[in-house]
Amino acid sequence: MKPAEIAKNIKDASHIVAHLDSEKKNKVLYTLHDLISKNTDYIISENKKDILNAENAGLQKSLIERLKIDGKVIKEMQSSIEDVIGLPDPVGEVTKLSKRPNGLLVGKMRVPIGVILIIYESRPNVTVDAFSLCLKSGNCAILKGGSEAVHSNIALFNLITESLQREGLSEDVVKLVTTSDRSYIYELLKQDEYIDLIIPRGGEALIKNVVEQSTIPVLKHYKGVCHIYVDEWADIELACRICLNAKVQKPATCNALETLLVHESVARTFLPHMAKIFSDHGVALKGCDKTLEIVKGIEKAEETDWYEEYLDLVLSVKIVKDMDEAISHIRKYGSDHTEAIVTKNYDNAWRFLRELNSSLVLVNASTRLNDGYQLGLGAEMGISTTRLHAFGPMGLEELTVTKFIAFGNGQLRE
Amino acid sequence: MKPAEIAKNIKDASHIVAHLDSEKKNKVLYTLHDLISKNTDYIISENKKDILNAENAGLQKSLIERLKIDGKVIKEMQSSIEDVIGLPDPVGEVTKLSKRPNGLLVGKMRVPIGVILIIYESRPNVTVDAFSLCLKSGNCAILKGGSEAVHSNIALFNLITESLQREGLSEDVVKLVTTSDRSYIYELLKQDEYIDLIIPRGGEALIKNVVEQSTIPVLKHYKGVCHIYVDEWADIELACRICLNAKVQKPATCNALETLLVHESVARTFLPHMAKIFSDHGVALKGCDKTLEIVKGIEKAEETDWYEEYLDLVLSVKIVKDMDEAISHIRKYGSDHTEAIVTKNYDNAWRFLRELNSSLVLVNASTRLNDGYQLGLGAEMGISTTRLHAFGPMGLEELTVTKFIAFGNGQLRE
Repeated sequence: MKPAEIAKNIKDASHIVAHLDSEKKNKVLYTLHDLISKNTDYIISENKKDILNAENAGLQKSLIERLKIDGKVIKEMQSSIEDVIGLPDPVGEVTKLSKRPNGLLVGKMRVPIGVILIIYESRPNVTVDAFSLCLKSGNCAILKGGSEAVHSNIALFNLITESLQREGLSEDVVKLVTTSDRSYIYELLKQDEYIDLIIPRGGEALIKNVVEQSTIPVLKHYKGVCHIYVDEWADIELACRICLNAKVQKPATCNALETLLVHESVARTFLPHMAKIFSDHGVALKGCDKTLEIVKGIEKAEETDWYEEYLDLVLSVKIVKDMDEAISHIRKYGSDHTEAIVTKNYDNAWRFLRELNSSLVLVNASTRLNDGYQLGLGAEMGISTTRLHAFGPMGLEELTVTKFIAFGNGQLRE
Repeated sequence: MKPAEIAKNIKDASHIVAHLDSEKKNKVLYTLHDLISKNTDYIISENKKDILNAENAGLQKSLIERLKIDGKVIKEMQSSIEDVIGLPDPVGEVTKLSKRPNGLLVGKMRVPIGVILIIYESRPNVTVDAFSLCLKSGNCAILKGGSEAVHSNIALFNLITESLQREGLSEDVVKLVTTSDRSYIYELLKQDEYIDLIIPRGGEALIKNVVEQSTIPVLKHYKGVCHIYVDEWADIELACRICLNAKVQKPATCNALETLLVHESVARTFLPHMAKIFSDHGVALKGCDKTLEIVKGIEKAEETDWYEEYLDLVLSVKIVKDMDEAISHIRKYGSDHTEAIVTKNYDNAWRFLRELNSSLVLVNASTRLNDGYQLGLGAEMGISTTRLHAFGPMGLEELTVTKFIAFGNGQLRE
């Protein structure tokens, strides 16, 4: 089917999905959960084809790791479905109902966005996660997975359509795009008449290309150059614990620490101690000139390092003379993702919170907490650093929008 | 200055504007209000140059009318500034603060979007309105007015920069783009690193072009094909009053009625009466076949008429056999702008409200009420039919976004 045709069909289906009862939506998800249990062998054997192809193509080991579906990944997928079933349905909520001077009762009703195109790489579990979140929030989804995961994605997608059919719903509710023909994808990115939102999840190059080609709004984050600022008034022991967690707990994630900023007045007490801890955990430091004076034998940070998202056990370290310099540095080199301050000073904590407009700003806590589950959203469709609609982790509510509703008894415009 | 340079400078300035106190922002607006009073002659004489050019170029009379600044328009601009001064500052509000199981206190803080590019035609008062709304919501604005209003826009912009300077603020807080060089504008539309949002206000062709060229999210509405459905259970007298108001009170606006849908069981009582009223008010009707049987001597509506935004005293009329047909018609031909039902039936009212996801859905009231002032937003930057971020009229709050904030005492990711 042509992109315009797929998009039109799914837009038509979206009117039905928008008004499904929560019970019905949960029933589909329970059925899918069940089908995954019953088809574990099928999923894993289809996944093996992708793994084999990836190995033959000489793909990086870390990519193959992400591609892999084993019993643990199956359980995680099912547990995500359970989470989504357990979350309240955001659709239909009415807020801000109030009477205007002319007696018109005006409010806002939460409704689905409509049709969402999700573009992702590697991890085939996104096929199930994205579908669950879209269905529960009343949206239709077009799923464009990576070509390296095509067998796994088709297998999971078959179970999804079966779960829809078993509950009497149209297969147009969700579409899987398996082609890797660029011109086809580019045409899909222009269907702004039918597709309401694109969420790309993947590397910076993929996302930039989507933004460049699309006429549809895109919510995305390019990268997470996350900072921790260890203030003049920091509790040094606390700073060490937070920085270590932010850097090493899972270094390949977007909310891991990439640049450490240290107030010059605590640098001589904090840095040697911290450097030792990092060294014990295999973290390689790259320091500014002042850092090199205090911590010996580490590499010098170049200008480009301050922009770097290492996604690895590497960390840039800079000594700043005050908070002004820390804030300026973050504004210049940061990616609006996650910043934290370690301080015991009230004014500095509030200033940092107010003046840095990243998607999450923390006081005395790890940057690794920027995550839908950790922040209480219950589930997550990714993190947006786009300063529009949803800024930060996107949960079910962030996959909806509000329309105005008005109850009148003959109100006119005078 | 090159587009990238303008955009970068204004992004830098946006960090300052984001944290201005409400008092300071109001002071700038008071000063601007005052400067407009003192420079009325200057504004009107600059505007006369635009009018003269427009007349010499043979522009449409209605366009020249929109271009014109007289004492009344000056007063309206000042009254809009007063409205914005009187509105609460949305920036800094903290909501949804709650404690996570690990003791982390998580909330959302309202912050400005950042840099907003507003593209508009004709009406030079938008220069002042858009600036006031952006400043009060802590945003920086790039204003791209129509070339036909260039003298008027420059005059108003000079007063804006003077008001900023008098309050000690950088002139980078707001920029006016006066060139009509397309390649320059297209380059501006690609500055997604610095510009966060584009709001185009103008004709469909202008907006389509912006969407096509931009890599920045665009909030817009193409057109307003607004419907009223007169239900089987409508109060006929009320339906007549509402339909008349929606069509004739200001036919050239986006929220004016364009297509009237009538349940077949009330068509014979309602339509002859309504047609007489419309005829008395100079409204030309275009009817479906069934309508032509009841109302004699009117034109037949063609397929293309159902998509039409007449912006004039013309109205399409269709008789439908039930609400299903009305809803299907609106979904197919509508523009997600404004729909109203006239009914005394509870179930039908709720079904219409729930199943039509346009930016405003009304029961027993005029479509002309889709407006920021009428719905209680206090001011308006235009209406969005983009199903993202702000769906419907955009007020001050819709020019902001929320970031997550978290107060911790050593929380880590386990």
